[in-house]
Amino acid sequence: MQRISLAIIGLGKIATDQHVPCVRRGADFEIVATASRNARLDGVENFTTLEELLAARPDVQAVALCVPPRPRYALAKSALLAGKHVLLEKPPGATVSEVQSLAALAVARDVSLFATWHSRYAAAVEEARRFLEPRAIRSVRIEWKEDVRHWHPGQQWIWEPGGLGVFDPGINALSILTEILPSPVFLTAAGLEFPANRATPIAALLTFASEAGFPVEAVFDWRQTGPQTWDIVAETDDGVLRLSNGGTKLVIGERNIEIAEKPEYEALYDRFAALIRGGRQDVDLAPLQHVADAFLLGERQVVEPFED
Amino acid sequence: MQRISLAIIGLGKIATDQHVPCVRRGADFEIVATASRNARLDGVENFTTLEELLAARPDVQAVALCVPPRPRYALAKSALLAGKHVLLEKPPGATVSEVQSLAALAVARDVSLFATWHSRYAAAVEEARRFLEPRAIRSVRIEWKEDVRHWHPGQQWIWEPGGLGVFDPGINALSILTEILPSPVFLTAAGLEFPANRATPIAALLTFASEAGFPVEAVFDWRQTGPQTWDIVAETDDGVLRLSNGGTKLVIGERNIEIAEKPEYEALYDRFAALIRGGRQDVDLAPLQHVADAFLLGERQVVEPFED
Repeated sequence: MQRISLAIIGLGKIATDQHVPCVRRGADFEIVATASRNARLDGVENFTTLEELLAARPDVQAVALCVPPRPRYALAKSALLAGKHVLLEKPPGATVSEVQSLAALAVARDVSLFATWHSRYAAAVEEARRFLEPRAIRSVRIEWKEDVRHWHPGQQWIWEPGGLGVFDPGINALSILTEILPSPVFLTAAGLEFPANRATPIAALLTFASEAGFPVEAVFDWRQTGPQTWDIVAETDDGVLRLSNGGTKLVIGERNIEIAEKPEYEALYDRFAALIRGGRQDVDLAPLQHVADAFLLGERQVVEPFED
Repeated sequence: MQRISLAIIGLGKIATDQHVPCVRRGADFEIVATASRNARLDGVENFTTLEELLAARPDVQAVALCVPPRPRYALAKSALLAGKHVLLEKPPGATVSEVQSLAALAVARDVSLFATWHSRYAAAVEEARRFLEPRAIRSVRIEWKEDVRHWHPGQQWIWEPGGLGVFDPGINALSILTEILPSPVFLTAAGLEFPANRATPIAALLTFASEAGFPVEAVFDWRQTGPQTWDIVAETDDGVLRLSNGGTKLVIGERNIEIAEKPEYEALYDRFAALIRGGRQDVDLAPLQHVADAFLLGERQVVEPFED
């Protein structure tokens, strides 16, 4: 099958660490151009802006938007209006409403819009979903604790309004949660810890209720040094499921489930290719909705200033 | 036609000022019971809790939930599970997700759920919508400025997390905006002013973009003494529309449009009866979504403490 010509927009850390190498290992896409303010990719044509790229390279069929969420909407709208298929890094936008608007535009232009949640493609997520589907869940507890200095060195936008703060990693946990649970959950209470000098939270405690009745609690913390924790534990009537290391390791009861490894972004681009070839959309806003609800409902606590 | 037997839950200010008198003036409903912690309504059976009411009065067909948003979900779920039609005062819930959950439950139980936005029934709103529909809009400006001490005397829940603060009246403006505009808008920036001693904002400045390209700006302020302002002004290619006094007065260009007065809650209960008799739902979450987006994206500013 002919490769889909792809442009990468925003050559930051996630693009160079994940998008570029995973696309190049796969057989579905060929990177033919990039647009980025400062960075370049060897072997392809590089532009400074998306507008220049769209004007110069009408052969581009799809674009992957790897810029921060605030500028994403305008770029996505331009690309959709130009008839390109669009992949949105997570979170898909700065607001829920703007992504709903993009989804309607994609349908109107008959191109594929893919609001990605890369953690849903972690190796053990699908197996966890299959285990939980027929079972009665008693409770779910999420711990997502990491060191912001290690994972987001010098990234100022995460601390600015709309930058999500600790929800930037926490939304990965919520994207897994909403994928593996058989029925929806909704937030009932939230506590958000804001450093005195920052506009976004460094820690959060979320309490959800599920339609099925069991409680879900999530703790997000960006101040964890030493071992990092990305765990989801579900107690069921048929044993405890422990999905750890960001969805890559699965233990059920005492039994370690062997899972064939596949990098998240390879599976994610498999899906983007399938959406494009099937003429379909994938825009699930539930994880971002829960974050917006947490800001709406959350109780704010001011904690000590954070310095990079 | 036989009247629909209705129970009013939460006999606070909005129930006694609006729901009870408007229902009694109409021909569609008969109030047969209430549930309220402290208040009673003469001439009907009064309960302390919804559970007692549902157990004692299986003849009740519909309930109107006039309690604050935080406890609303649990009551709505109980009523829907008991097979009752449910009317939700605005805002319909404490989070967007919980109302989505209720909407799915109402469909499953084959009863009507009505997430009301009473300002949409203000006398001149429909005429404003009809004027704007075929015209090119250039810009929209909302000013919603009132005195919180006058309108919410001693209501502590509006200042608590999830209480919405100035968005409690502001969401009325957003409910009118999303009703009269021919295409969706989405938030691009927000500034929120929080009193140093309160968990919700006392003022907000919202900037929206519209899919059609024109800008929308909204100013909400709870510190306005003297004349109160509830205005929406739209500039179009065919003159300026000025919808003022909370949607009840309409001036187009220099021309004052005469509108037959009908109290908002009478029109609202007309619609609830039509939904029940037609077996339909009306759950539009756009106004609450914009508020959640404003909390998600907004830049927080701390202003002087507010004392009742």
